[in-house]
Amino acid sequence: MNYSEGLLLGGEPKKRHMGRTFGVLALSCQTVILIGFGVLGEAKFTAESSAHSVQVYNYYVGVALMMLVGFGYLMTFLRWYGLGAVGFTMLITCISVEVAILAEPLFANGWEHKINVDVMSLLHGNFCAAACLISFGGVIGKLNPSQLLVLAFVEPIFYSMNNQLVLTTWLGIADVGGTISIHMFGAYFGLAVSAVHGKPVDTSKEKSSTVSDIFSFIGTTFLWLFWPSFVAGAIPAGTPEAETAITNTVLALIASTVMTFAVSPLLCDGVFRPVDLQNATLAGGVAIGAIANLDIKPIGALLVGSFAGALSTVGFCRVQEALLTKLQLHDSCGIHNLHGLPSILGGLASAIVPTIISDDNAGHPGKQLAGVAVTLVVAVTSGALSGFALKTLNDDARMADDSFYWEVADDFDKGL
Amino acid sequence: MNYSEGLLLGGEPKKRHMGRTFGVLALSCQTVILIGFGVLGEAKFTAESSAHSVQVYNYYVGVALMMLVGFGYLMTFLRWYGLGAVGFTMLITCISVEVAILAEPLFANGWEHKINVDVMSLLHGNFCAAACLISFGGVIGKLNPSQLLVLAFVEPIFYSMNNQLVLTTWLGIADVGGTISIHMFGAYFGLAVSAVHGKPVDTSKEKSSTVSDIFSFIGTTFLWLFWPSFVAGAIPAGTPEAETAITNTVLALIASTVMTFAVSPLLCDGVFRPVDLQNATLAGGVAIGAIANLDIKPIGALLVGSFAGALSTVGFCRVQEALLTKLQLHDSCGIHNLHGLPSILGGLASAIVPTIISDDNAGHPGKQLAGVAVTLVVAVTSGALSGFALKTLNDDARMADDSFYWEVADDFDKGL
Amino acid sequence: MNYSEGLLLGGEPKKRHMGRTFGVLALSCQTVILIGFGVLGEAKFTAESSAHSVQVYNYYVGVALMMLVGFGYLMTFLRWYGLGAVGFTMLITCISVEVAILAEPLFANGWEHKINVDVMSLLHGNFCAAACLISFGGVIGKLNPSQLLVLAFVEPIFYSMNNQLVLTTWLGIADVGGTISIHMFGAYFGLAVSAVHGKPVDTSKEKSSTVSDIFSFIGTTFLWLFWPSFVAGAIPAGTPEAETAITNTVLALIASTVMTFAVSPLLCDGVFRPVDLQNATLAGGVAIGAIANLDIKPIGALLVGSFAGALSTVGFCRVQEALLTKLQLHDSCGIHNLHGLPSILGGLASAIVPTIISDDNAGHPGKQLAGVAVTLVVAVTSGALSGFALKTLNDDARMADDSFYWEVADDFDKGL
Repeated sequence: MNYSEGLLLGGEPKKRHMGRTFGVLALSCQTVILIGFGVLGEAKFTAESSAHSVQVYNYYVGVALMMLVGFGYLMTFLRWYGLGAVGFTMLITCISVEVAILAEPLFANGWEHKINVDVMSLLHGNFCAAACLISFGGVIGKLNPSQLLVLAFVEPIFYSMNNQLVLTTWLGIADVGGTISIHMFGAYFGLAVSAVHGKPVDTSKEKSSTVSDIFSFIGTTFLWLFWPSFVAGAIPAGTPEAETAITNTVLALIASTVMTFAVSPLLCDGVFRPVDLQNATLAGGVAIGAIANLDIKPIGALLVGSFAGALSTVGFCRVQEALLTKLQLHDSCGIHNLHGLPSILGGLASAIVPTIISDDNAGHPGKQLAGVAVTLVVAVTSGALSGFALKTLNDDARMADDSFYWEVADDFDKGL
Repeated sequence: MNYSEGLLLGGEPKKRHMGRTFGVLALSCQTVILIGFGVLGEAKFTAESSAHSVQVYNYYVGVALMMLVGFGYLMTFLRWYGLGAVGFTMLITCISVEVAILAEPLFANGWEHKINVDVMSLLHGNFCAAACLISFGGVIGKLNPSQLLVLAFVEPIFYSMNNQLVLTTWLGIADVGGTISIHMFGAYFGLAVSAVHGKPVDTSKEKSSTVSDIFSFIGTTFLWLFWPSFVAGAIPAGTPEAETAITNTVLALIASTVMTFAVSPLLCDGVFRPVDLQNATLAGGVAIGAIANLDIKPIGALLVGSFAGALSTVGFCRVQEALLTKLQLHDSCGIHNLHGLPSILGGLASAIVPTIISDDNAGHPGKQLAGVAVTLVVAVTSGALSGFALKTLNDDARMADDSFYWEVADDFDKGL
Repeated sequence: MNYSEGLLLGGEPKKRHMGRTFGVLALSCQTVILIGFGVLGEAKFTAESSAHSVQVYNYYVGVALMMLVGFGYLMTFLRWYGLGAVGFTMLITCISVEVAILAEPLFANGWEHKINVDVMSLLHGNFCAAACLISFGGVIGKLNPSQLLVLAFVEPIFYSMNNQLVLTTWLGIADVGGTISIHMFGAYFGLAVSAVHGKPVDTSKEKSSTVSDIFSFIGTTFLWLFWPSFVAGAIPAGTPEAETAITNTVLALIASTVMTFAVSPLLCDGVFRPVDLQNATLAGGVAIGAIANLDIKPIGALLVGSFAGALSTVGFCRVQEALLTKLQLHDSCGIHNLHGLPSILGGLASAIVPTIISDDNAGHPGKQLAGVAVTLVVAVTSGALSGFALKTLNDDARMADDSFYWEVADDFDKGL
């Protein structure tokens, strides 16, 4: 496959054609998925099972909103990649939800059981989509649509495998909000893909504009607002555990927001950096996930959120540049800062908290650390493998803009 | 009434005045509506009746969000008509909800019964607003504000009449998600108005920009996300029927999204067309409405969504241009592709499915087809009549921009 | 502290540095807050107490959405202050929610009681944030980040004091939707701060653009949509009182929207003014708050909304300019028109309605008027005091743009 020119800023003629490759690949993938649903999917609802679906649906809508609006718009900060940010977010979400709905029960129950597709399936499918979209954040602009499609198809399989290992069968760790199983997995899977892909040769288009920064904040605010639905979504609604998870998540987000405002100008020449505020404000939500449902008191949630916000801001202001220059690791959206580092903080917290407080929902310290280790190994290994496989679909080392794959408006040169 | 110049791109002086016409007309319409509410409206709530309002309210908010944010922003793709897209969407929604709250019970129960205005009334009023906003999509830029106001006043009356004919008294068809009664009615009513109005003489301003395309996707994503609330909103929450409707709607939307990504570049020179992705991704929601609450299995929902997405994309890439050049039918937003064609597919599906599966909620095949036919006849006839009536309010054949009716910013020449 | 240049449109070099002042101040404030939570905060949930949290959470999300997305984006109408609008909204919301969670129970119960931090606390904290963000609307662009931080820290204390006076201990007025306690307090507190600060010397940057107007409507639509959650959020869900409050709020908003469309072109040269439509459409929600839960019939809600919409539009088209030229009172977002005037209308309505209808939830006419008077006195006095205190943090009389405090994109000159 030969993806051609796109807009080379400053003049060369645009030449755009994915040809039929993407369309045929997408139809093929979707056919496989349809066969899977045809063979395995069923929909058996009873009055009892559906009674809970009211609140599960409300959680589902919030979480799906985090995908399409949250992640989609957060990534529009790239001035010449707005269509790709929002559009490919829709594509990746849809494909990965489909695959996850099939893959998770397959790893849990094997082929001999039918899969009941209900609102809870859709919610869990979107949890997987979150991991895939985090990975997308590490490679946005560098992978072409066919590669993204394949990524959205294969990552849910590795994600489901890791879930089976750390959340259920093997370790059974506590991670109600997906700090380890979603954020850590998605971040390090994506970073491994990015490492294998290599640094783009031209990053001149990797910048924001006045307008794209405001679009990006749409993503930030919606992620912030519905994050408690993400953390508490799988807990039975209206229970003390759910209320604890919701309250702690909001407090952690508040604290990480305040800390980001405080630390960003201290580290960056006395000004607020939009990229810090768009991202590190959310770090509290990432870090609190593995302990949100525990009785850590409001001050516990605020402290975790504070550390996460500060750590993530340091990541954006200091670590990201170092990874690029010293390790040649290019991280388009800074997923290591928002999802990687805070998930490690959260994973450590989930091992330390049970040594301080007593709570039936708390994990075992050793198992929590093992869960972190296993997730890191599975994510990096499967991400690297996927990255090598994806290399066969393209050899273009440039950073793409929307004109590579989209019919763009005639004012595209100026970007957003 | 004489609407004047607006921005003639390239230079003529701006001359803007609706004078007092619109204001006086709006005050008159609102006075009539207030008299209606004064005479007929009441608010009698009991502990029993209000117990269900919790979830009805959650559905209502989602559906109202589809109106103001969904339809409103979807239509901002027009580079020089952003204020009109969002603003007139608010106006049309408010007027049509008011009229529908009065008109629907009047057709059902006559003048001798008081009308109880509760949260369910607001939800049903927004269903009617959806039909009116779909029609708006066919004529946006071509009708002036006074004409839109009258449209929002009269369309709910015909809509309520058609509902009475096909949903209750006469045919009693199955159409829980409004495929026939809302999408088909709104699309063909709007197309009839557009056909009577005629093709605009100058369509040079009918284009998008890099920024307006990203605004438009805000509408797409919110419509996509809350569509299940639209389909399941009138079903008692927490029942197997509601969970079936929600799950099938999401699956249909996922499938139409994937298919739009696959088909768009196959039909359009190997690139994704923003207009396809902004619209045809939603076609699964349109088509599934009449069968969403039936036991069609996940694969059934995915197949309906797949066909709808492909059909709608073909509509945008092939049919729309043919309608314009061969039938002189100008369709500003492509409502025929998103709401017309997929609603016909969904209407046919609602007649075929009952011959395959057995479900108490399924309609009678013959009646479903009759419902489609009646709706098409009522919509086209009442739309054409309305179109002729609206012609008396203006004779301007140009495509308007925001400077015709709005105080625009001093950078308006460049558009969004 | 010396805030320097920013972009002086047209050329001077940018010089930006808040230095360490803001960061150190933010860390200090947050430390005080953390100590407060550490000493006073607890989280005791029981099965009974948490059962209601399901719907309270749904209300909370809607209200928090009104803060970050609603207020945040509504204020992006300022072409060169988009980052400040959205960003400082996040900062003010987080700080004021934290302080309010502590301050409100302290005024009610004193220091000897622990404070149970639950989802209802978060909801009430956001009610206070609404007051602070309304005040922010009066001073946006004129106060620097350190001043805004202090404002968000001290205003909740005065707000809580006033709540204690008028809502509970002393007067016990009826004000379920915060017409008096939130909108009136926030508006006149902010106007007092603005009056003390003085008129900015240069308002050349106080303008909107084609793009910023469409961003601003995002705020309008989301405020409109979730306003019923704001009004009914503290009422037990699923009760006739809650359904009454929701229905009346929506009807009032519909009516104020239609009236704004009617009156804006009548007062303003026959065109719709975006600023009117962005704001006055919401006036029905402001005015209805103190009587929304009463049996005022649909026509009552529609009439209150109609008057509020017309009054607010007159405010934007006539009063705002008069305040500026005659009283030297500069009101960046027109909070006097959207929150001030309609809250006075609503306060008067809450005194008149009990003389017409009989409803257990209605207030006593004299006390309602006293509540208005007390709130005005407390708001203006505490706002003026705060304004004088804030003057010590800065002496810059210019209207700022984002380049004063943010790292801005290289296309910042053109603005949004």
